[in-house]
Amino acid sequence: MNPGDDKTNVSRREFIAAAGGVAIVRSAAGENIQVTDSTANVPADPTKVPGAPATPLGARSAFERPERRALGGAISFTPLHELHGTITPADLHFERHHAGIPTIDPERYELLVHGMVERPMKFSLAELKRFPATTRTCFIECSGNLPLRANAKTSPQSLAGLTSQSEWTGVSLATLFREVGVRPKANWFLAEGSDAAVMARSIPVDKAFDDAIVAYAQNGEAVRPAQGYPARLLLPGWEGNTSVKWLRRIELSDRAFQTREETSKYTDPLRDGAVRQFSFVMDARSVITFPAYPVRLEPGWIEIRGLAWSGRGRITQVDISTDRAQSWSRAELQTPVLSKAHTRFRYLWKWDGRPTDILSRTRDETGYTQPTRAQLDTTRGKPQGPFAYHYNPVTGWRIEDDGAVYLAGAPGERY
Amino acid sequence: MNPGDDKTNVSRREFIAAAGGVAIVRSAAGENIQVTDSTANVPADPTKVPGAPATPLGARSAFERPERRALGGAISFTPLHELHGTITPADLHFERHHAGIPTIDPERYELLVHGMVERPMKFSLAELKRFPATTRTCFIECSGNLPLRANAKTSPQSLAGLTSQSEWTGVSLATLFREVGVRPKANWFLAEGSDAAVMARSIPVDKAFDDAIVAYAQNGEAVRPAQGYPARLLLPGWEGNTSVKWLRRIELSDRAFQTREETSKYTDPLRDGAVRQFSFVMDARSVITFPAYPVRLEPGWIEIRGLAWSGRGRITQVDISTDRAQSWSRAELQTPVLSKAHTRFRYLWKWDGRPTDILSRTRDETGYTQPTRAQLDTTRGKPQGPFAYHYNPVTGWRIEDDGAVYLAGAPGERY
Repeated sequence: MNPGDDKTNVSRREFIAAAGGVAIVRSAAGENIQVTDSTANVPADPTKVPGAPATPLGARSAFERPERRALGGAISFTPLHELHGTITPADLHFERHHAGIPTIDPERYELLVHGMVERPMKFSLAELKRFPATTRTCFIECSGNLPLRANAKTSPQSLAGLTSQSEWTGVSLATLFREVGVRPKANWFLAEGSDAAVMARSIPVDKAFDDAIVAYAQNGEAVRPAQGYPARLLLPGWEGNTSVKWLRRIELSDRAFQTREETSKYTDPLRDGAVRQFSFVMDARSVITFPAYPVRLEPGWIEIRGLAWSGRGRITQVDISTDRAQSWSRAELQTPVLSKAHTRFRYLWKWDGRPTDILSRTRDETGYTQPTRAQLDTTRGKPQGPFAYHYNPVTGWRIEDDGAVYLAGAPGERY
Repeated sequence: MNPGDDKTNVSRREFIAAAGGVAIVRSAAGENIQVTDSTANVPADPTKVPGAPATPLGARSAFERPERRALGGAISFTPLHELHGTITPADLHFERHHAGIPTIDPERYELLVHGMVERPMKFSLAELKRFPATTRTCFIECSGNLPLRANAKTSPQSLAGLTSQSEWTGVSLATLFREVGVRPKANWFLAEGSDAAVMARSIPVDKAFDDAIVAYAQNGEAVRPAQGYPARLLLPGWEGNTSVKWLRRIELSDRAFQTREETSKYTDPLRDGAVRQFSFVMDARSVITFPAYPVRLEPGWIEIRGLAWSGRGRITQVDISTDRAQSWSRAELQTPVLSKAHTRFRYLWKWDGRPTDILSRTRDETGYTQPTRAQLDTTRGKPQGPFAYHYNPVTGWRIEDDGAVYLAGAPGERY
């Protein structure tokens, strides 16, 4: 607390001269942007060189460049293989949008709640923040979070990077529904976004009274634009598409709205030719994030690490096989294990240098066990096309005798 | 998952033309920097304009500019009044350093553990990451986290912004100590940083076997340079200064080392002229973050919000007074309540428009109750100088009849 006592007084200019790598740029709009972009001029002994000064925002090390894998302008994948613990930094949260990220002025933002209600109301952002708040750490996952045509050189980011976890804060949708007076016959509501796709989904009213949140904060700060700034719906455990971003309108009704996003898309073909609709809940899934492609292993003790999650509640168990699914052992779960949340698992294993496959399989508190691809295909028929919704097979990694790690499975059937 | 189906294909150029505000800059070193710096050209109807594309990093909204308050190059304060929930975004985590932030190449980083051990060892960063990992969400607080000469126009950021919370991941120090074989007579260890101040503290070995971590990850990603990249000591619940950043050396001994940071500084004068040394644990404290200066209140229902924490364990209770400490009511605690962690409290209150003071007081699972300033001064004598270590009085806010909110208390004795 007493800067006057410090050994060294470091000005910004001095630091730039000394360590050669940091610039603090002020943008035209007056925002401070701290850029650390040199890995070249690192002092041999950092104790002999004055360090960088305190700044309004703390940048990443120039040696750390985690990035989402952005694809086609409308999707980006969280780098799960680079992350530890369970929180996803907000700027690495996966994104999926259907007409880009809208720019919304929070002062002009309004949420309309109307339809089968006693008192239709509009809420400003300030009004939403004035209501009693609630905070919840949970995952969001795109229901299409698995590339069916993955090849051996698929990383955890590409295999499962359409799920991320944040600590969300907002107002319970139940609070807003009590405010407007939802009529007894209103069983469904429409949630509509203000993006150019006007994304809209029908949601059973029961979910609102269970655990739905209109979230305005993510990991402590304002929700980021790619995640729905200034406010989004958050339906813990349900397919990401239903947690409508840039939420502008909620309409109560006695029936589902049959929007484009729940008829032509986000429905699941079944084996008999029927199609499953309103398959909201994300089933339990796990993925090993280390070791995984493109890591190269050395023989010896390693900790197999990964994430497991279920839209139905708490993860109770993760089993690891290091012998191509012949035998399974229980992994350790990092506490606290939260409901509908990414759960970090760890399993200590000594790799003897011989080729094998390692796999993870999880189970949630409802007793549901993550299926194999063969089990899924028996139930639903083999998926057609490049992706399938709600496809959560056991997956794993093949370790070769030179320590190279690839996605496990035969070509075309890698799980 | 199927970008080809999207309603709108948005190129970066189109978005810049359409919404006028986003640029993605590639630095000389190849790092992508996304800058959203226009609040001027916001579309009247965002559904009529293509939105921004997916990017490697998701920037904040141009309308949101949270910043640490940086002071004198060696301190910056977390904007507690702008945050929700309990996680502090990594770039807003408070910082305190004594000779600036060193630049460290992770490939050259080594942690030496030696002294009274069977096998002195050096660990590379890769080796630290190879050990079994553990994850823990906890606060770090500077022991000087209270300006004694605060005036009425002091915000929560200035009043208590030297505490922040992250989800930390690393290796238990106990694991490393078992690896090197700590000798039975080794009761203390020195933790030394590789900053230009060569910050060093003596720590009892018991803390290592209790819950100390050598942390390399913060909120999922690599620890940021201002918080000790590539690895720092983390002593949950203890004064921030002991969680030595840029950790380079640990030396085991049968006595304390009496470093500069535990003799001339980070000691506490007591009433009788004696000085308390090695006062490691941060006592329980709470702070109301809303409403607080510089908010202006309107009469009606509001939710009083804040944070409480204790270095001794879980927070069990936060009481709120809205009548200048005449009566107290229990606030709600956001679950899960974690040990040695920021705990969000909330209390619904109807402000009638009349002047009053609102205060918060917390209690932890050891039965310790946050004292008043008068109680602290009776025990320790009135603090001299601009700050005191481990000074955790009940604080609050004065609300005036026009709704203006100021730090409560008489000038010079504001708590």
